[in-house]
Amino acid sequence: MKLAIDAMGGDHAPEEIVKGAVQAAKSIPNLTITLIGDEEKIRPFLNNEKNITIIHTTEVITSEDEPVRAVRRKKNASMVLMANEVKEGRADGCISAGNTGALMSAGLFIIGRMPGVDRPALSPTLPTQDGQGFLMLDVGANVDAKPEHLLQYAVIGSIYAEKVRNINKPRVGLLNVGTEDGKGSDLTKKAFQLMKEAPIHFIGNVESRDLLDGAADVVVTDGFTGNVALKTIEGTALTMFSMMKKTFMSSLKTKLAAGLVKKDLKKLQTQLDYSEYGGAGLFGLSAPVIKAHGSSNQRAVYNAIRQACQMVERDVTTTITTMLNELHTKEEDA
Amino acid sequence: MKLAIDAMGGDHAPEEIVKGAVQAAKSIPNLTITLIGDEEKIRPFLNNEKNITIIHTTEVITSEDEPVRAVRRKKNASMVLMANEVKEGRADGCISAGNTGALMSAGLFIIGRMPGVDRPALSPTLPTQDGQGFLMLDVGANVDAKPEHLLQYAVIGSIYAEKVRNINKPRVGLLNVGTEDGKGSDLTKKAFQLMKEAPIHFIGNVESRDLLDGAADVVVTDGFTGNVALKTIEGTALTMFSMMKKTFMSSLKTKLAAGLVKKDLKKLQTQLDYSEYGGAGLFGLSAPVIKAHGSSNQRAVYNAIRQACQMVERDVTTTITTMLNELHTKEEDA
Repeated sequence: MKLAIDAMGGDHAPEEIVKGAVQAAKSIPNLTITLIGDEEKIRPFLNNEKNITIIHTTEVITSEDEPVRAVRRKKNASMVLMANEVKEGRADGCISAGNTGALMSAGLFIIGRMPGVDRPALSPTLPTQDGQGFLMLDVGANVDAKPEHLLQYAVIGSIYAEKVRNINKPRVGLLNVGTEDGKGSDLTKKAFQLMKEAPIHFIGNVESRDLLDGAADVVVTDGFTGNVALKTIEGTALTMFSMMKKTFMSSLKTKLAAGLVKKDLKKLQTQLDYSEYGGAGLFGLSAPVIKAHGSSNQRAVYNAIRQACQMVERDVTTTITTMLNELHTKEEDA
Repeated sequence: MKLAIDAMGGDHAPEEIVKGAVQAAKSIPNLTITLIGDEEKIRPFLNNEKNITIIHTTEVITSEDEPVRAVRRKKNASMVLMANEVKEGRADGCISAGNTGALMSAGLFIIGRMPGVDRPALSPTLPTQDGQGFLMLDVGANVDAKPEHLLQYAVIGSIYAEKVRNINKPRVGLLNVGTEDGKGSDLTKKAFQLMKEAPIHFIGNVESRDLLDGAADVVVTDGFTGNVALKTIEGTALTMFSMMKKTFMSSLKTKLAAGLVKKDLKKLQTQLDYSEYGGAGLFGLSAPVIKAHGSSNQRAVYNAIRQACQMVERDVTTTITTMLNELHTKEEDA
């Protein structure tokens, strides 16, 4: 199993990226890794691992770069060379913590879509109270989605949840403004009808109020709504932590209390940290492509690598392609 | 100033509704209130207030009722009779804590839209860290919004924020998936162009991550996205409070800490409680209609009444009508 990793993407690159790769190279059997980036900056964090090689380049796509233009013009950027490794069959999948839009562009233009998928989806696994987490797709790749796209996301998400997250008969829900059948926008009403007929365990509409309680294992939505929901969760959690901190710092008494629960509250914060669940998949590309969070540390990178390995090992891409192909054939027959 | 109030709507009706009305009748000058509902159940909470009268009815629209059908068929429901009071000029505005959909239907069918508004919006004021709060519209009345609707919401929200929330030159933002110009869906791209030309203080795109930090005074969005954002804020906050509670109950040490910060954390919860900011306006109807939260207590009802009074006193409806009329004239001239 071979993975290509963009060593220069993310806030803590290359150090944390390389350290995550080293940890994975040590502990995951049959894995070889190609790190792409500035060799001089990467080398200090390696210890002559035999299953890690470097492709040297100094060009980098930054978070300020306009995605499409950057991928087209920066032909030697670490992210572009990474995608080339997959395209030319020298890697089975790839990982970057860099510019999300650019990774999506590199995925589309260089690696390409899988047959049967119109628009790939960006799909993180988000935390739930019980620690199980749920997959949400799309969170921003496709902001003007059509009902058929949501159907494809439902199938892709269901297969991923089953094969990689080991969930038996994953519950697939449609994010909507009410739980009753027939609720929602024109888009969700049509998607509901399509999802009802699909070979998945569709549990109907779910409301965003219930997401963190684990209302579904896979939550399907258009990229605009998903992006807003994701950022609302992040923003609300951050605001509450910040308000809590202020509360704890407000008097001697509260400071004393803070000392007593510090460790436990830290645990709470970890529970809500979604890098614990790996990176976000760019689903619908013809090979596993994982977007690790921009703030990824070694642990998050390691989790993303494990995730990519499972996608490769369990041949998620082929399974999705086959299932979508059956779906299309059925539609044509109907 | 005359308000009609549905005494039977909400989880704590009629007691909390009537108590809130009594408080308002005592403290707000020149206010007369008509309570509509079961006289036998209302009377025990009154003390012969001279400026409160009752219209007796036993019919009620419940939260399970299908909105449109309920308004059409339950002709003597407290909510329907309340809307009639406004329609027939015996009240300047009205308030209900009952079925939101039914209130919207009663507003549309009985009270009617103001000229220049295609689709009314449901608009609560949500909490921010600094306690200022922000107005969000729409949060669910119009799930398939068009760019022109968002423009109307921007104008309505701006006038309301200025006249009722006393904000000078309110900052109006468009909820989007990125802050840069040109970001977003087909809908938000078109709405952005319209809002740029409108007679408001448009500050561009805002992200849902920054809402509770007070990114804008008025946040404009379509009803689907707004509903998801609102329920995500609610759900995330509830989940975090529930996780925090578990954390505090987990050991003797944390229980001790809980004792020390209990009051302060309660304050934090109040800060995030949006009934403190009054009810949600049904903006775009030809008179002020306020939807108080279903769980409204006396204080929330009182706040909703004050809000309705300010809308009446400052003649918000006329100002909005005039401004939208000017906008339409300008468009036609162009």
